[in-house]
Amino acid sequence: MTVKLVVLYTQPDDADAFDEHYLGIHGPLVQAIPGLVRFEGARMVAAPDGGEQTYHRIAELYFDDAAALEAALGSDQGKATGADYRQIAPPGSRMFVAAVD
Amino acid sequence: MTVKLVVLYTQPDDADAFDEHYLGIHGPLVQAIPGLVRFEGARMVAAPDGGEQTYHRIAELYFDDAAALEAALGSDQGKATGADYRQIAPPGSRMFVAAVD
Repeated sequence: MTVKLVVLYTQPDDADAFDEHYLGIHGPLVQAIPGLVRFEGARMVAAPDGGEQTYHRIAELYFDDAAALEAALGSDQGKATGADYRQIAPPGSRMFVAAVD
Repeated sequence: MTVKLVVLYTQPDDADAFDEHYLGIHGPLVQAIPGLVRFEGARMVAAPDGGEQTYHRIAELYFDDAAALEAALGSDQGKATGADYRQIAPPGSRMFVAAVD
């Protein structure tokens, strides 16, 4: 069963500086994670429910199954990506594992 | 530029009853929305950051561009789906538009 790591980044103080690091440094780190099947990033541009624009970005990392995701997070490359995440993620950012229907 | 509607459902009181309605009734409503390119649903199963399991489900509806998404939401089918969303979405559920990288 395909699983994905869903990352929700809250609004950074400087969105341009965030995106520069995110696209230029964080993205390549993600792409090098072993077992990664697909990586999709997207920038939140509106909140059609009229609520707060809580999140700046959503990122999704797809893996074949939960074991592959766990192995990926525990790999050297996964740890390096996690360290970079903790450096750039604004307070309140979240990370979830989801089982794709 | 591909855009997607990202829907985050908070935890329902009865997850089984929610999923029964979501998969049996809401899903088919979504699938009938004009202009929908792809629909991906997933059930949140863990929060590896150690935080609260805030969301029960994430759903993503893909469209070719922002105009197609806007037209979809304004269509009869889009309105029917929105009405069903408002009926089932637990308080705090959110809806965002995101531009895919």
